[in-house]
Amino acid sequence: GYHERVVDHYSNPRNVGAFDKEDADVGTGLVGAPACGDVMKMQIRVDQASGRIVDACFKTFGCGSAIASSSVATEWVKGKQMDEVIAIKNTEIAKHLSLPPVKLHCSMLAEDAIKAAVKDYEAKK
Amino acid sequence: GYHERVVDHYSNPRNVGAFDKEDADVGTGLVGAPACGDVMKMQIRVDQASGRIVDACFKTFGCGSAIASSSVATEWVKGKQMDEVIAIKNTEIAKHLSLPPVKLHCSMLAEDAIKAAVKDYEAKK
Ligand code: FES
Repeated sequence: GYHERVVDHYSNPRNVGAFDKEDADVGTGLVGAPACGDVMKMQIRVDQASGRIVDACFKTFGCGSAIASSSVATEWVKGKQMDEVIAIKNTEIAKHLSLPPVKLHCSMLAEDAIKAAVKDYEAKK
Repeated sequence: GYHERVVDHYSNPRNVGAFDKEDADVGTGLVGAPACGDVMKMQIRVDQASGRIVDACFKTFGCGSAIASSSVATEWVKGKQMDEVIAIKNTEIAKHLSLPPVKLHCSMLAEDAIKAAVKDYEAKK
């Protein structure tokens, strides 16, 4: 019994794709989960005048819960400022998707990937 | 880098689907991986005269390696007898896909699912 939101995001993931990581307005986060060996890449595109995230995308080889978590995360970060998105907690994503405890590390991948993407963007400036 | 065979089976998985588990000629295996919490369902359809597996399908919420392992497994079991398929080892699947050690539990899901499907079919007879 997976929650219908997980099944929805897994069957129809939002924002799967990649940006050119060399672009000055792109931040790229690539993270791995020690628990299962899965990897996730998340990218943000930032409007440099306002500092807002205008677009986001991801790719993962992770499980259904990881796909759903990153799909939700890319939706949540759009339109937000850096300081708002680094405050997104994996527990919020897990709660939104009703993930079982054993799948918390999958939502952690999404939280870590957001933070890594922001860090990469900040380092480029 | 993932091996091209994993990427191929992940991007284009073979035999995704479901049979009616009430059918007398169908065996259903549903297994879980304690390491990551993922689940896999594999089903076989058996020609009752010859005892050969004539069709197989799977569904999983698992990661890319689990999808690729079960896709390969469904291809391997077709046309074989029960005693042949229960001899399929996860290490053969992992070797075929060049899975890294941390993903061995994903190929184990496929081995376990085959065995569970055979057991279910045998129990029905
Ligand atoms: S089990 Fe690896 S990301 Fe979910």
